Amino acid sequence: MASGRDPVAGGKRAAILDAAIERFGEDGYEHTKWADVAADVGVGPTALYHYFESKQHCLFVVMDQALVELDHRFQDLTQGNPDHVAALRAVLADCFDVSEHEALRNRVLVAEQGLLAHPCGSPREEEARQTARMHTRDIERAWTLFLAAAADSGTIAIANPRLTARAILGIYNSIWLWFRPRGRIELDRVAGFFTDRILAIVGLEPEPSDRLQEAA
Amino acid sequence: MASGRDPVAGGKRAAILDAAIERFGEDGYEHTKWADVAADVGVGPTALYHYFESKQHCLFVVMDQALVELDHRFQDLTQGNPDHVAALRAVLADCFDVSEHEALRNRVLVAEQGLLAHPCGSPREEEARQTARMHTRDIERAWTLFLAAAADSGTIAIANPRLTARAILGIYNSIWLWFRPRGRIELDRVAGFFTDRILAIVGLEPEPSDRLQEAA
Repeated sequence: MASGRDPVAGGKRAAILDAAIERFGEDGYEHTKWADVAADVGVGPTALYHYFESKQHCLFVVMDQALVELDHRFQDLTQGNPDHVAALRAVLADCFDVSEHEALRNRVLVAEQGLLAHPCGSPREEEARQTARMHTRDIERAWTLFLAAAADSGTIAIANPRLTARAILGIYNSIWLWFRPRGRIELDRVAGFFTDRILAIVGLEPEPSDRLQEAA
Repeated sequence: MASGRDPVAGGKRAAILDAAIERFGEDGYEHTKWADVAADVGVGPTALYHYFESKQHCLFVVMDQALVELDHRFQDLTQGNPDHVAALRAVLADCFDVSEHEALRNRVLVAEQGLLAHPCGSPREEEARQTARMHTRDIERAWTLFLAAAADSGTIAIANPRLTARAILGIYNSIWLWFRPRGRIELDRVAGFFTDRILAIVGLEPEPSDRLQEAA
């Protein structure tokens, strides 16, 4: 997997993170042996320890990287866009514009989010956990502020922006627990269905003809 | 915790399961030491092994018991009720009629559902995993059949009963990852908000005045 990568520090670290996503996503975090991740990228235990203290430390960094990227994508699509409905639809299109690797990463993020709730004994693990936890909250806060602004402008009628944010994130996140890239249901169909359901949650009608253009 | 319980086999097993729910729910499954569950109910490692091979075996039995009970409650409220809308509203009221212990159990069920996806090495663990996995599917199937019947009768307008079932279960399950019994938001408020959002998913209007009566 890492064969085509630059073996300098940044490249090696990124290769370890990518290999961890594949292992955690395919085999499950609990069932993955940390030594197998090291073997996937061809690093020994000592070199591996330079980057990550443990499997759990690596997991929290994987989750945090994903959360930071998702937050940036959300900010890019919503900030400075006065048309809240168009911004929401652009965000939803972007949420389903994911590669197979990103689908696996999302699965890891959702399947292991429970681990973020409990303090770790090791300082390095605990720091990574708190960072990922903070960025989980950043995303919820970004959605809440966006929905509150949309409600204030009168374009979306919602009673409680924070619970609405949790409802949207809850329904969206749940997809990655059962969705499989080469499974029975194609992502386009899942995207269309769940986009309409999320629009229904905020009281908006589906507009299927536009959605396909936005997703392209 | 087990002090008031009958120390015969069934009682002891139930006491271990209850203690495991408290530990897994409060401290997280990964962070719970199996020996601490044994200590909570006052059984030694040999006696504990008589009931459960491992922490993971116990987790799968906890999950399975919860799933079987949730399935029975769903069946009781929907089967033989020709009024699909009333049945749906009764199910949703029941879904939020949970004790603190049940809220913890739901959290364990949701936070650890990822573990059900991956085969175990031990035959006893694997059997428990497959049973819990089967009952997860039973609940999804029960919801799917109920929604398909409601759509057929014309009372609820939904395009895809299976994906609708997944959307409803996804949004409902997500609640237990953040809801805390003595937290900032009361369960009644969460129940009202999410019931209305789930009704919106299937295209139904909220009817708050009736809901409180049904939940009572």
